Amino acid sequence: MNPDPLPSRPHASDDGRAPGADRRPTVGRGEKVRAAVLAATLAELAELRYAGLTVDAVARRAGVHKTTVYRRWKDRDALIVDALAGQIAADIPIPDTGTVEGDLRLLARGLAAWLRGPSGAAVLAVMLSEGAQAPGIAEVRSRIFDDRLRRAEPIVTRALGRGELPAGTDPAAVIKALAAPLYFRVLITAEPVDDAAADRAVTAALAAARHGGLG
Amino acid sequence: MNPDPLPSRPHASDDGRAPGADRRPTVGRGEKVRAAVLAATLAELAELRYAGLTVDAVARRAGVHKTTVYRRWKDRDALIVDALAGQIAADIPIPDTGTVEGDLRLLARGLAAWLRGPSGAAVLAVMLSEGAQAPGIAEVRSRIFDDRLRRAEPIVTRALGRGELPAGTDPAAVIKALAAPLYFRVLITAEPVDDAAADRAVTAALAAARHGGLG
Repeated sequence: MNPDPLPSRPHASDDGRAPGADRRPTVGRGEKVRAAVLAATLAELAELRYAGLTVDAVARRAGVHKTTVYRRWKDRDALIVDALAGQIAADIPIPDTGTVEGDLRLLARGLAAWLRGPSGAAVLAVMLSEGAQAPGIAEVRSRIFDDRLRRAEPIVTRALGRGELPAGTDPAAVIKALAAPLYFRVLITAEPVDDAAADRAVTAALAAARHGGLG
Repeated sequence: MNPDPLPSRPHASDDGRAPGADRRPTVGRGEKVRAAVLAATLAELAELRYAGLTVDAVARRAGVHKTTVYRRWKDRDALIVDALAGQIAADIPIPDTGTVEGDLRLLARGLAAWLRGPSGAAVLAVMLSEGAQAPGIAEVRSRIFDDRLRRAEPIVTRALGRGELPAGTDPAAVIKALAAPLYFRVLITAEPVDDAAADRAVTAALAAARHGGLG
């Protein structure tokens, strides 16, 4: 009854519940429904890609009524963003090692492992399968990446607090500078996305950030 | 008979022909056939994408016999690489302004203009329309990008000769550091790819290169 790949994994943004809250029947049930709908969304995406996904089919697969879905997500795209962003957040944790270099290295290696694994390949296939043209899909990609930024930016704000990077460094620019070369390898040059590639991305991003190139 | 890569449109790196050579009738005819086949390849790609393109259909559209195509290109992928790399080379010239910053700025702005224009959108749609999975397509993408690198790397080797960048800087790494954030905007974050984005990519790539981040 629970086909879900994700909800059992903790991720950062859904930890606002009071201790023991998930033992309260209503919240517990709400979470189960939510998890089932998100899992059904991922399964539908894998089969039908972005353009083919319908809220009807998601609801049917999750065993809930369509209105239950619309009560929680305003539309199809909101559902897709939530499902994919949640999956990515669970797959690529945000580290807090105490140094910006340590954090960025773990983050880049986590992203690299994800990009070369089945989950990253599946997300990229969904997100790029209809090219840049499918209406709505660019907006969905952008919102998913915004979610990543929101989660990862504290790495840079903590570094700024510790004086590790020059004041004026743009946290989003640092995270993007780290991610861009790895996506570029997967999507354009077909070079391996291994730990060495991740480490090179960190070295370049930190060199740029430390010398005012990412302000 | 003349297997030269990109003769019909002038560009920086293929100017080795003797003056008047392109007025010799045999070369002229060979060039015309070559140009017709490459144009037919681009037209077929636009309609049928990567997976749908056949050498038969390209030959028919170009008005030549299939064996004429195979005499010049060993297979379908070689034809696709040649057609797309040639189009990109004609669309994005390689500058030589006398400074690495001037060159990289023009190159990045040229790439940005191409990425946001119809030609870039068409190439990306072809190259990513079947996702990362279509057999052969990753290899084709990688060979097209290798061609770009081969043409653009002299910007960095000239800069090294002028002492503008530290010895040991990897020319390919600099060009990739410039290109990656622009592709990333188009393919992932859906942010505008304008001159400002191009200039920011140059600033970051140069900061990284000057401080040993791209060795």
